[in-house]
Amino acid sequence: MEKPLTYAVVGVGAVGGLYGGRLARAGFPVHFLAHSDFAHIRRHGLRVDSVDGDFRLRKVSVYRRAADMPRCDVVLVTLKATANAALREILPRIASRKGVVIVIQNGLGTEESVARLVRPATVLGGLAFLCCNKIGPGHIRHLDYGRLTLARHAPRERPGGVTPIMERVAADLAASGTPADLRDDLALARWKKLMWNIPFNALTIMLNTDTRTIMGNPASRRLAWELMQEVAAGAAACGRTIPTGFPRRMMRDTDRMTPYQPSMKLDFDHGRPMEVEAIYGAPLRAAAARGCRLPRIETFYRLLTALNPQSP
Amino acid sequence: MEKPLTYAVVGVGAVGGLYGGRLARAGFPVHFLAHSDFAHIRRHGLRVDSVDGDFRLRKVSVYRRAADMPRCDVVLVTLKATANAALREILPRIASRKGVVIVIQNGLGTEESVARLVRPATVLGGLAFLCCNKIGPGHIRHLDYGRLTLARHAPRERPGGVTPIMERVAADLAASGTPADLRDDLALARWKKLMWNIPFNALTIMLNTDTRTIMGNPASRRLAWELMQEVAAGAAACGRTIPTGFPRRMMRDTDRMTPYQPSMKLDFDHGRPMEVEAIYGAPLRAAAARGCRLPRIETFYRLLTALNPQSP
Repeated sequence: MEKPLTYAVVGVGAVGGLYGGRLARAGFPVHFLAHSDFAHIRRHGLRVDSVDGDFRLRKVSVYRRAADMPRCDVVLVTLKATANAALREILPRIASRKGVVIVIQNGLGTEESVARLVRPATVLGGLAFLCCNKIGPGHIRHLDYGRLTLARHAPRERPGGVTPIMERVAADLAASGTPADLRDDLALARWKKLMWNIPFNALTIMLNTDTRTIMGNPASRRLAWELMQEVAAGAAACGRTIPTGFPRRMMRDTDRMTPYQPSMKLDFDHGRPMEVEAIYGAPLRAAAARGCRLPRIETFYRLLTALNPQSP
Repeated sequence: MEKPLTYAVVGVGAVGGLYGGRLARAGFPVHFLAHSDFAHIRRHGLRVDSVDGDFRLRKVSVYRRAADMPRCDVVLVTLKATANAALREILPRIASRKGVVIVIQNGLGTEESVARLVRPATVLGGLAFLCCNKIGPGHIRHLDYGRLTLARHAPRERPGGVTPIMERVAADLAASGTPADLRDDLALARWKKLMWNIPFNALTIMLNTDTRTIMGNPASRRLAWELMQEVAAGAAACGRTIPTGFPRRMMRDTDRMTPYQPSMKLDFDHGRPMEVEAIYGAPLRAAAARGCRLPRIETFYRLLTALNPQSP
């Protein structure tokens, strides 16, 4: 039998806590790099309240500094995009040259810079479809959904294909309770995810409400739909065709969702930096570079930029 | 000497209180129709704190019901556009067939329906350029500016020209301390006013701030500018050319303005109905009828509609 893959989780927020916690619960060697929650997690472990079953990990391999961590086969990057400046120091210390680094973040463009840091390791983009929040130190609340989509980064946004190590990681995730899809085309997957993130991050913040209220009001529901059409136009400008039925499916899924406030809304409410550049700025620039303007998305980009606290 | 014109003021808010109060102070016969503030004004009169000089009117000719009022030569309609349903009963009782009705409101389209109510009276659109709020019953605070622009309504939005009675009203206003411009083209004047109202009503509400903060932040400043460009495009679609230097002048004037929250922002903060249809819906429909889409303005129309409390 093969030696099990070793995992590192960079950032123990909602996503890192849930996916990393499940891997640890399933018996995989998982090393967490925590920042503000380090002392709490070392002392009390990790607590996950999940629709798929609550669990606690009393003893967690947690570190405060990347320099103290072992090099791992698979690194899950689950920091917020606003904290990515820290990756330059962290990743070269803990990623393995033959390993995999998975960037589980929203928005476009992070994989390219991560790939430069960890070459020749395989870099994957990870797209988490879940309603999940960190509600206290080392305490995650998972409300709905949970699927993780993985696709390989390749230069110049070409489709990256599916490799054996990707299949192994997907099997580990599935064994731990996280369904994982493997996709060929990272850019397409990212644009599809933006089709939800762009409308609902902006609208929950600007209307100070949750997904259910937005879907229940004809004016905001229509605006969500119009924003989805602009995302489809941006994807098309970048050579990606989002299937025509996909926006309708997003609307239906959001109708069925537990009333939800996405993480950017919580960041806004708590005065924390928001991922405005990753989710709004980068797609606008990608589309604009192909001569495509997206005026509604641009409007929210400016509003959210005006509201975004300066990063520390 | 001619008999002085008699004036009625419908709605004693910021605009009606200031302009009507000044006319009364100057000795013109002015009859006020008040709603919520009737008892207070009858007892205590009207108080105006103004950059151009504070004044109090201890005795005011104020009415609760239009039926009790005399018919007047000039009616100033200074209700909010959201209360226009009441005009159907009020105006035929107090407007004179040979007189003038001045609709001092924001947005597009009210003069047309007022003209049907008071035919054959002359209907003017009035555009108030001022920073002024009602801060309590019968208590107006006038912060900055004050000019009133008047233009005659004519069928199918044709320029209406300037008539002798318009000149007389303008002279009365000037004598009372309100500089009044007479313009030939109401639609052009309305679109020019929208160039300020559309950006700054929306942005003060969505960013929960005042004009100074908006102008001081590069992202919101740019968005204000982009909204002005869309207003110019809408005006052009309706056959009105806003001079190219005009948006720049609006920006400069706003830079110099006392930090200000327009009345729609105050309405929002107090949970009152907002003039969303007059200021956003009507111009969008006018432009769309000529095949012109204004996506940024449309975005704010949807946001403000979602936020607008249902009218009682």
